[in-house]
Amino acid sequence: MQTKPLPCDLLVTAGILATQNEARDILRQAALAVTGGHIAAVGSAADLVRAFAPAETLDLSGCLVLPGLVNTHTHAAMTLFRGLCDDAPLAVWLTEHIWPAEAKLTSEAVRAGTELACAEMLASGTTCFLDAYLYVDAIADAVDTAGLRAVLCQGVFDIANANFKTTDAALASASRLADRLAGHDRLRPAIFPHAVYTCSAETLARCADFARDRGLLLSTHAAETARENDDCQKTNGRRVIPYLKDLGLLGPQTLLAHGVALDAADIETVAVSGACVAHCPKSNMKLASGIAPVQALRAAGVTVGLGTDGAASNNALNLFSEMNVAALLQKVATGDPTALGAGAALDMATRDGAAALGWPELGRLTVGGPADLCALDLSRPQLCPAFDPVSDAVYAASGGEVVCTMVAGKVLYRDGEFTGFDYPELRRRMCAMTRSLKRRS
Amino acid sequence: MQTKPLPCDLLVTAGILATQNEARDILRQAALAVTGGHIAAVGSAADLVRAFAPAETLDLSGCLVLPGLVNTHTHAAMTLFRGLCDDAPLAVWLTEHIWPAEAKLTSEAVRAGTELACAEMLASGTTCFLDAYLYVDAIADAVDTAGLRAVLCQGVFDIANANFKTTDAALASASRLADRLAGHDRLRPAIFPHAVYTCSAETLARCADFARDRGLLLSTHAAETARENDDCQKTNGRRVIPYLKDLGLLGPQTLLAHGVALDAADIETVAVSGACVAHCPKSNMKLASGIAPVQALRAAGVTVGLGTDGAASNNALNLFSEMNVAALLQKVATGDPTALGAGAALDMATRDGAAALGWPELGRLTVGGPADLCALDLSRPQLCPAFDPVSDAVYAASGGEVVCTMVAGKVLYRDGEFTGFDYPELRRRMCAMTRSLKRRS
Ligand SMILES: [Zn+2]
Ligand SMILES: [Zn+2]
Repeated sequence: MQTKPLPCDLLVTAGILATQNEARDILRQAALAVTGGHIAAVGSAADLVRAFAPAETLDLSGCLVLPGLVNTHTHAAMTLFRGLCDDAPLAVWLTEHIWPAEAKLTSEAVRAGTELACAEMLASGTTCFLDAYLYVDAIADAVDTAGLRAVLCQGVFDIANANFKTTDAALASASRLADRLAGHDRLRPAIFPHAVYTCSAETLARCADFARDRGLLLSTHAAETARENDDCQKTNGRRVIPYLKDLGLLGPQTLLAHGVALDAADIETVAVSGACVAHCPKSNMKLASGIAPVQALRAAGVTVGLGTDGAASNNALNLFSEMNVAALLQKVATGDPTALGAGAALDMATRDGAAALGWPELGRLTVGGPADLCALDLSRPQLCPAFDPVSDAVYAASGGEVVCTMVAGKVLYRDGEFTGFDYPELRRRMCAMTRSLKRRS
Repeated sequence: MQTKPLPCDLLVTAGILATQNEARDILRQAALAVTGGHIAAVGSAADLVRAFAPAETLDLSGCLVLPGLVNTHTHAAMTLFRGLCDDAPLAVWLTEHIWPAEAKLTSEAVRAGTELACAEMLASGTTCFLDAYLYVDAIADAVDTAGLRAVLCQGVFDIANANFKTTDAALASASRLADRLAGHDRLRPAIFPHAVYTCSAETLARCADFARDRGLLLSTHAAETARENDDCQKTNGRRVIPYLKDLGLLGPQTLLAHGVALDAADIETVAVSGACVAHCPKSNMKLASGIAPVQALRAAGVTVGLGTDGAASNNALNLFSEMNVAALLQKVATGDPTALGAGAALDMATRDGAAALGWPELGRLTVGGPADLCALDLSRPQLCPAFDPVSDAVYAASGGEVVCTMVAGKVLYRDGEFTGFDYPELRRRMCAMTRSLKRRS
């Protein structure tokens, strides 16, 4: 059959393509045709080169191409506090370092910190993230400039902060955010009541109502530590999960961050509600919070994504290292080397994370879906001999192998350079800002 | 005072220099003068530029410079089996995948696998490692070509393998190895009885005698799992540590790999003997072996280094990720976020690992010591804002930031290129070899 080549914006060739489609097909000497930021075709390079007449080409034939990774829980601007205080008890860390630093935050600082986080995420293959922090308008500006996708949450707490003095003001801001982002193709609004210990029952219920009324995702920190359950039991007569359920916060559009201290009943409650979990293994380890029952959650049918949490408690925003640690941690925690295999860990960082954000067309490379991808240089020693690309991505890669990251068909990172924004200027801005931050703290 | 500049081979400038000396001094705008592969001076760049007339200069002023990292336990050539089998029960992994593949090993394959491992280690900042595998002559050839330092062990087991049919033959090879490497400046010989479950009491005792006679390090896998203790109790009437002690294997020149299943008495026995431990957190997690009591070992005064183990059970040879996981794992295991801080983790990957190998002049950058270092590009987003370089190295870096690695004053890796050997040729050789390995397995 001889047909006229079809036009497309871009033809990407890939040495190995892990599609993360339903069948988890892995194609060698593959290609993707991209038009209008979406994937027009996926197949063998030979076939697609014949079938398409692209305006541009991108040669990733020496690379392992994966869907862009999805970070389901972070506080991007906390890159401002990376390395400010580590290895401290939680109370010291929070009350003596993080909160005083946050009290001095400005929207300019949040914008710079968020841009830096976007650079770090792009350079390690992440194309979409959920963010919850102060000054959400500055965050939206930063992410829009950087070109990533994001679910941007209005944070809500009943404690006055640098951004808002009252809960009403935060909820009004959530409403403005939803209006501002309506119809945006890369940014989606959401609401993030901080936690059961910083929000009253009334505030939590109001956030749930807001999310339901506007059809938005609600995310919250939930059961990060055993102590959080103990305190909730004392104050509210129930553990965190039943308390959230009774207040109407659990449902298919709910994303629970951490979910470490969950008992069997909690897991059942979460599963029945359809809520998802953002697993943040490195942050949970660093703060000694515990080990989330990821195997049990997955066995119960809960969708579990991966999150880095903020750079003050990780201290990287690198989902390759998060996949690796997630898989290793479940094995040692359960005593079972077959627990959370490489395929499951990659699913969590791609398809499952996307589903957890309510954005299921992300995290896979399939016809009609968005052209969001990252490419790892297969010539690096740690990716040789390439027996199993999924194992290599999860167990051997560090994230430093990423040489190209694309969102909506647009290359945002290539060979150490950021094409979407002025990274050297950002670094100068960050350095000036953090020097003054350190002087004042 | 005006003096004539001193000659030196090389002047290296560093943006930040973490010396890992006794005081753990961190110098900014620093420099190192190098002569004859050793450090002639360490100090401020301004001072050293005035004081020295170098034959060459190396500008690492945009970098964080650390001592070259020390990997105290690996089986380098197992890069040949990276990704061949993951997420399997230990018995399946060993008997159905690793042992059949090892039965077909040749010295050519071991040489290629070891060279690949050297490339991977150099690209992630490691300059010295302890290796134990088959075909030690091929290993010595590979490491000599690649230019790293290594403690090269003759492996000994009472099971016939592709390399040796008898224990006598292995011990004779150990003797030849010691002769061959006598006086070598970068390679040192050692002996490695595989484990209590693969060596008879007589073989273990003969290895101990050999090490004592020749003044060499003895390393062995010890107490990697609880089951190993149970089996040893049944077979030999004692747990692994007392059994090794009674056979004369514990002493200051002993390095125990893993040390996961240690009780309080074991820890005391190890501490009193002066033996050191090679902690391999990622391998222990991946195989679900358990969590080594690193905090308790360090508290008892035991020197603990870090090891990656082989690429069939990790699957990377990257000490940055090993430092990170080691620190995080102790925190979550002990429930204490202050456990194994960044400084301790960096010590383990540098000074303490060097001491564990009986090579204490490594793992630090001090006058008179070897010029072995690695440099991380400070312009990467994850190393910004650089409040605390030690925290950044342990908690934020992935190893992908390494842009220069030097052994004995010689640059072996720079900006993705290996200067000591033909890496593209090696990759071709590896690909051909592993394709045939896969076909036969
Ligand atoms: Zn969080
Ligand atoms: Zn080993």
